[in-house]
Amino acid sequence: MKAKVVVTLKNGVLDPQGKAIGHALTNLGFDGVGEVRQGKLIELEVAETDPAKAKAQIEEMCRKLLANTVIENYSIELVA
Amino acid sequence: MKAKVVVTLKNGVLDPQGKAIGHALTNLGFDGVGEVRQGKLIELEVAETDPAKAKAQIEEMCRKLLANTVIENYSIELVA
Repeated sequence: MKAKVVVTLKNGVLDPQGKAIGHALTNLGFDGVGEVRQGKLIELEVAETDPAKAKAQIEEMCRKLLANTVIENYSIELVA
Repeated sequence: MKAKVVVTLKNGVLDPQGKAIGHALTNLGFDGVGEVRQGKLIELEVAETDPAKAKAQIEEMCRKLLANTVIENYSIELVA
Protein backbone atom coordinates (compact mmCIF):
# COMPACT_ATOMS: atom_id res chain seq x y z
CA MET A 1 0.00 0.00 0.00
CA LYS A 2 1.31 3.43 -0.91
CA ALA A 3 0.81 6.52 1.17
CA LYS A 4 1.66 10.20 1.14
CA VAL A 5 2.53 11.89 4.38
CA VAL A 6 2.55 15.66 4.52
CA VAL A 7 4.39 17.27 7.41
CA THR A 8 3.88 20.98 7.94
CA LEU A 9 4.94 23.40 10.62
CA LYS A 10 2.18 24.34 13.06
CA ASN A 11 0.75 27.83 12.84
CA GLY A 12 2.80 30.29 14.79
CA VAL A 13 6.02 28.32 14.46
CA LEU A 14 8.69 30.42 12.77
CA ASP A 15 9.61 29.13 9.31
CA PRO A 16 12.96 30.63 8.25
CA GLN A 17 13.16 28.41 5.17
CA GLY A 18 9.78 29.66 3.97
CA LYS A 19 10.82 33.25 4.68
CA ALA A 20 14.01 32.74 2.65
CA ILE A 21 11.98 31.44 -0.30
CA GLY A 22 9.64 34.43 -0.04
CA HIS A 23 12.54 36.90 -0.06
CA ALA A 24 14.20 35.09 -2.97
CA LEU A 25 10.98 35.25 -5.01
CA THR A 26 10.64 38.97 -4.33
CA ASN A 27 14.29 39.54 -5.27
CA LEU A 28 13.69 37.66 -8.53
CA GLY A 29 11.05 40.26 -9.39
CA PHE A 30 7.87 38.41 -8.47
CA ASP A 31 5.40 40.93 -7.06
CA GLY A 32 2.72 40.33 -4.47
CA VAL A 33 4.25 37.30 -2.83
CA GLY A 34 2.64 36.85 0.58
CA GLU A 35 3.40 34.27 3.22
CA VAL A 36 5.47 31.29 2.14
CA ARG A 37 5.76 28.16 4.26
CA GLN A 38 7.70 25.04 3.50
CA GLY A 39 6.74 21.53 4.50
CA LYS A 40 7.80 18.00 3.73
CA LEU A 41 6.19 15.33 1.63
CA ILE A 42 7.12 11.72 2.27
CA GLU A 43 5.91 9.05 -0.13
CA LEU A 44 6.23 5.57 1.24
CA GLU A 45 5.18 2.02 0.59
CA VAL A 46 4.19 -0.43 3.31
CA ALA A 47 3.52 -4.16 2.96
CA GLU A 48 0.28 -3.91 4.98
CA THR A 49 -2.72 -4.17 2.63
CA ASP A 50 -5.55 -3.39 5.03
CA PRO A 51 -6.17 0.39 4.76
CA ALA A 52 -7.07 0.87 8.43
CA LYS A 53 -4.04 -1.06 9.66
CA ALA A 54 -1.75 0.63 7.15
CA LYS A 55 -2.96 4.04 8.31
CA ALA A 56 -2.45 3.10 11.97
CA GLN A 57 1.08 1.90 11.21
CA ILE A 58 1.95 5.07 9.31
CA GLU A 59 0.52 7.22 12.10
CA GLU A 60 2.89 5.50 14.48
CA MET A 61 5.75 6.19 12.05
CA CYS A 62 4.78 9.87 12.05
CA ARG A 63 4.73 10.09 15.83
CA LYS A 64 8.00 8.19 16.23
CA LEU A 65 10.10 9.52 13.37
CA LEU A 66 8.58 11.47 10.52
CA ALA A 67 7.15 14.45 12.37
CA ASN A 68 8.18 16.42 15.41
CA THR A 69 4.72 16.73 16.93
CA VAL A 70 5.78 19.57 19.20
CA ILE A 71 6.08 21.92 16.24
CA GLU A 72 4.70 19.99 13.27
CA ASN A 73 1.38 18.66 12.04
CA TYR A 74 1.10 15.63 9.81
CA SER A 75 -1.57 14.28 7.51
CA ILE A 76 -1.70 10.87 5.88
CA GLU A 77 -3.28 10.03 2.56
CA LEU A 78 -3.44 6.43 1.38
CA VAL A 79 -2.90 6.26 -2.36
CA ALA A 80 -3.51 2.68 -3.53
CA MET B 1 -4.73 33.47 -3.87
CA LYS B 2 -3.15 30.56 -2.03
CA ALA B 3 -1.39 27.69 -3.70
CA LYS B 4 0.38 24.49 -2.81
CA VAL B 5 3.42 23.49 -4.80
CA VAL B 6 4.68 19.94 -4.53
CA VAL B 7 8.24 19.30 -5.69
CA THR B 8 9.31 15.66 -6.05
CA LEU B 9 12.40 13.98 -7.41
CA LYS B 10 11.97 12.47 -10.87
CA ASN B 11 11.83 8.70 -11.13
CA GLY B 12 15.28 7.21 -11.34
CA VAL B 13 16.93 10.06 -9.46
CA LEU B 14 18.67 8.75 -6.36
CA ASP B 15 17.01 9.90 -3.13
CA PRO B 16 19.44 9.40 -0.22
CA GLN B 17 17.15 11.26 2.19
CA GLY B 18 14.28 8.91 1.39
CA LYS B 19 16.61 5.91 1.75
CA ALA B 20 17.73 7.17 5.17
CA ILE B 21 14.12 7.50 6.30
CA GLY B 22 13.41 3.96 5.07
CA HIS B 23 16.39 2.53 6.97
CA ALA B 24 15.46 4.46 10.12
CA LEU B 25 11.88 3.12 9.99
CA THR B 26 13.16 -0.45 9.60
CA ASN B 27 15.60 0.06 12.49
CA LEU B 28 12.72 1.32 14.62
CA GLY B 29 11.02 -2.03 14.10
CA PHE B 30 8.53 -1.20 11.37
CA ASP B 31 8.24 -4.20 9.07
CA GLY B 32 7.49 -4.23 5.37
CA VAL B 33 8.62 -0.71 4.60
CA GLY B 34 9.19 -0.44 0.85
CA GLU B 35 10.45 2.49 -1.14
CA VAL B 36 10.48 5.86 0.60
CA ARG B 37 10.93 9.11 -1.27
CA GLN B 38 10.99 12.60 0.13
CA GLY B 39 9.72 15.70 -1.58
CA LYS B 40 8.99 19.30 -0.68
CA LEU B 41 5.75 21.10 -0.13
CA ILE B 42 5.68 24.86 -0.53
CA GLU B 43 2.57 26.77 0.49
CA LEU B 44 2.49 30.30 -0.80
CA GLU B 45 0.22 33.25 -1.22
CA VAL B 46 0.22 35.52 -4.25
CA ALA B 47 -1.64 38.79 -4.71
CA GLU B 48 -2.93 37.77 -8.17
CA THR B 49 -6.62 36.82 -7.95
CA ASP B 50 -7.19 35.42 -11.44
CA PRO B 51 -6.64 31.63 -11.19
CA ALA B 52 -5.09 31.27 -14.66
CA LYS B 53 -2.69 34.17 -14.15
CA ALA B 54 -1.81 33.04 -10.63
CA LYS B 55 -1.01 29.56 -11.92
CA ALA B 56 1.15 30.95 -14.72
CA GLN B 57 3.03 33.13 -12.23
CA ILE B 58 3.62 30.22 -9.86
CA GLU B 59 4.77 28.02 -12.74
CA GLU B 60 7.39 30.61 -13.53
CA MET B 61 8.43 30.63 -9.85
CA CYS B 62 8.82 26.85 -10.02
CA ARG B 63 10.98 27.01 -13.13
CA LYS B 64 13.13 29.85 -11.81
CA LEU B 65 13.52 28.98 -8.15
CA LEU B 66 11.37 26.37 -6.47
CA ALA B 67 12.25 23.30 -8.50
CA ASN B 68 15.37 22.07 -10.21
CA THR B 69 13.68 20.86 -13.38
CA VAL B 70 16.66 18.72 -14.36
CA ILE B 71 15.97 16.30 -11.52
CA GLU B 72 12.64 17.40 -10.06
CA ASN B 73 8.98 17.49 -11.05
CA TYR B 74 6.56 20.04 -9.69
CA SER B 75 2.81 20.25 -9.43
CA ILE B 76 0.72 23.27 -8.53
CA GLU B 77 -2.62 23.23 -6.79
CA LEU B 78 -4.53 26.45 -6.27
CA VAL B 79 -6.29 26.42 -2.93
CA ALA B 80 -8.55 29.49 -2.68
